[in-house]
Amino acid sequence: MMNVAIMGYGTIGSGVAEILETNKEIIARNVGQEVALKYVLDLRNFPDSPVADKVIHDFSIIENDPEVQLVVETMGGLNPSYPFVKACLLAGKHVATSNKALVAAYGTELLKIAREKEVNFFFEASVGGGIPIIRPLYRCLMGEKILDITGILNGTTNFILTKMDKEGWAFDSALKEAQRLGYAERNPEADVEGHDTCRKLAILTAMATGKEVNYEDIYTEGITAISDVDFRYADKMGMSIKLFGASRVGRDEMVNAYVAPIMIDRRHPLYTVSDVYNGILVTGNMLGETMYYGSGAGKLPTASAVVADIIDAAKHVNRNVVMGWSSERQQIAPMEANEFRYFMRMAGRPEEHLDSLMDFGPEEAVTLEGMDEFAVITKPMLEADFQEASAGLDRLIKFIRVER
Amino acid sequence: MMNVAIMGYGTIGSGVAEILETNKEIIARNVGQEVALKYVLDLRNFPDSPVADKVIHDFSIIENDPEVQLVVETMGGLNPSYPFVKACLLAGKHVATSNKALVAAYGTELLKIAREKEVNFFFEASVGGGIPIIRPLYRCLMGEKILDITGILNGTTNFILTKMDKEGWAFDSALKEAQRLGYAERNPEADVEGHDTCRKLAILTAMATGKEVNYEDIYTEGITAISDVDFRYADKMGMSIKLFGASRVGRDEMVNAYVAPIMIDRRHPLYTVSDVYNGILVTGNMLGETMYYGSGAGKLPTASAVVADIIDAAKHVNRNVVMGWSSERQQIAPMEANEFRYFMRMAGRPEEHLDSLMDFGPEEAVTLEGMDEFAVITKPMLEADFQEASAGLDRLIKFIRVER
Repeated sequence: MMNVAIMGYGTIGSGVAEILETNKEIIARNVGQEVALKYVLDLRNFPDSPVADKVIHDFSIIENDPEVQLVVETMGGLNPSYPFVKACLLAGKHVATSNKALVAAYGTELLKIAREKEVNFFFEASVGGGIPIIRPLYRCLMGEKILDITGILNGTTNFILTKMDKEGWAFDSALKEAQRLGYAERNPEADVEGHDTCRKLAILTAMATGKEVNYEDIYTEGITAISDVDFRYADKMGMSIKLFGASRVGRDEMVNAYVAPIMIDRRHPLYTVSDVYNGILVTGNMLGETMYYGSGAGKLPTASAVVADIIDAAKHVNRNVVMGWSSERQQIAPMEANEFRYFMRMAGRPEEHLDSLMDFGPEEAVTLEGMDEFAVITKPMLEADFQEASAGLDRLIKFIRVER
Repeated sequence: MMNVAIMGYGTIGSGVAEILETNKEIIARNVGQEVALKYVLDLRNFPDSPVADKVIHDFSIIENDPEVQLVVETMGGLNPSYPFVKACLLAGKHVATSNKALVAAYGTELLKIAREKEVNFFFEASVGGGIPIIRPLYRCLMGEKILDITGILNGTTNFILTKMDKEGWAFDSALKEAQRLGYAERNPEADVEGHDTCRKLAILTAMATGKEVNYEDIYTEGITAISDVDFRYADKMGMSIKLFGASRVGRDEMVNAYVAPIMIDRRHPLYTVSDVYNGILVTGNMLGETMYYGSGAGKLPTASAVVADIIDAAKHVNRNVVMGWSSERQQIAPMEANEFRYFMRMAGRPEEHLDSLMDFGPEEAVTLEGMDEFAVITKPMLEADFQEASAGLDRLIKFIRVER
């Protein structure tokens, strides 16, 4: 029997407990022994829940119980999750976490401790909710040189953008609806400003390069400036706008990474990833493109990813599975070194002002009925060149990057 | 050092040799030791190839060389691949194969021998080309009860259907183009009649249920009856036609499985899977829907999947990884027990003949300009009920099943 403790009985933690019970037999068959929940650490009590008699409030009980071989961390945040997880690993216990903030901030150190202690620090649920993406990188694509990872990694912003795209909603209304449905926090900044996507991208990039990635090195732009008018243009051009986290890796020492809203056309594999779904495109040097798609959030899907970690750890009780990254720091190229096409909205009428855009190698101008403005998409340009060339354009209303 | 032999130096076998050389360092880092190609078994010689000095013609050299710990089978067919693979496993060597015919026909026995000999019989490349799908089922979704697997599993037929859909080609022209590009065999029966999809579906279903699936139990219908006129209707209805292999599992003892062309609408996650790409939707009881997408064929993508098997085996040299299925036989429900909606093409004009279809609960009739016929889509019906009700309709030109 393998004893597990869950730290944090919120949405995901309670989902993990539920799956351990519901799929008990399948799990036991796959692990080769029963996986039993021994403790639930939380500040609260849950007298009417199935785990009522397992709730404890003192972390040291878990830390000091040699019967607990694996600890699930679903508290979120960094404190006390960081000291607790670290203490668990140091005590020789495996840890599975859904906490992307923890992994992005302290992953390097925690992976190192896990290696030294011959246990595992797993975090499948920290990226892509229920979608298997961390494990495929070290279990399935381990013979590949990863060249590119591009993902829709945040369900909340994808829900908002889908409402704007498919139903013509304004950003504010779509955000309110996301909050009403519980997809967005009352303070939605982490989602809509791209910070959540950035942390997930940092984790994926570190998995792909094998080196530590500081998420603060990644240019991050959210979706708050995207308007319903932008979507009217996009629709007319047969395109959509998605919040991408993208890393081009493996070509030289530098990684080109960014988080930004990107305009894509209907042929793009991520075009149909709608609502709260996530999708992640991974390109390998031999494999070409593969995509992983599914629920990017939600109680049971995310908990299912934690349970996959529990099972993997249970199958490797006395062994550290080689994965993760070293403490060597990965260099990230500045945003100016990336190349895009650019969707530009310009005040005035195209016949009068299109000439001023000749340096941008624009495609045909697009107009919207009743608006004294027009839009073009430029040729592929280095961000540095675009920024310089567009700095003097006083008729430029805004721009959105377009997939090359 | 881990020594590998490749049996069959065709497209995929030579791809495996190429990846072992190109990604040598990545592979060594992941395995923890060098993986070296020792022999290439083929009837031919390849004097100008990089493996010229490794080519042998006598299988017993591989069988009897204790230094060869892993054998790659990329010969295809059943003879001599079956006796050779069996002999390798009995000699205590791991085997990785891309051969779906071998796995579908002899997988149960070969898995059993591998277990007894404490080695591994891996076949990631047998389904979905380069897309990781077998390994996610036993490495990532092992805490899930799989409820449904639906896939576009054959790149050749998907290429043909895409040409018919997007460019209005007739079946024969699209098939010829597929043959010209080397996607289809001169005898295309295995692809266009659905046999290839059926074998792959049988493998996926056995992975999901843990029981042996006889592919002959699965109703299989190909795409040879699909015409450009069908696609004109589909286009008008906002739909497309794809060759699906689908299994509904895990709800009771019976599995509902079939291979058939299915009409799907734009919201279906597999709608955008075009050309030679494959896509596989997997639904778990906790996880919900996930999709895996990528190159379903091709030299290097498929070879990359074989290399993933090599690495996994190399990391578990003295251990059988729990996966696959038992010799218990999975029951497959007859086609008549499946439920679909049905796209029906009827001779005549809808105003005169729509009344005769009232039992089918049809949606609005659709007509094509200049054609003395119309089409409807029925309500969801059991196949048995549909077959019975439609038997007497002499104006029925044809039907195609529609996703419920």
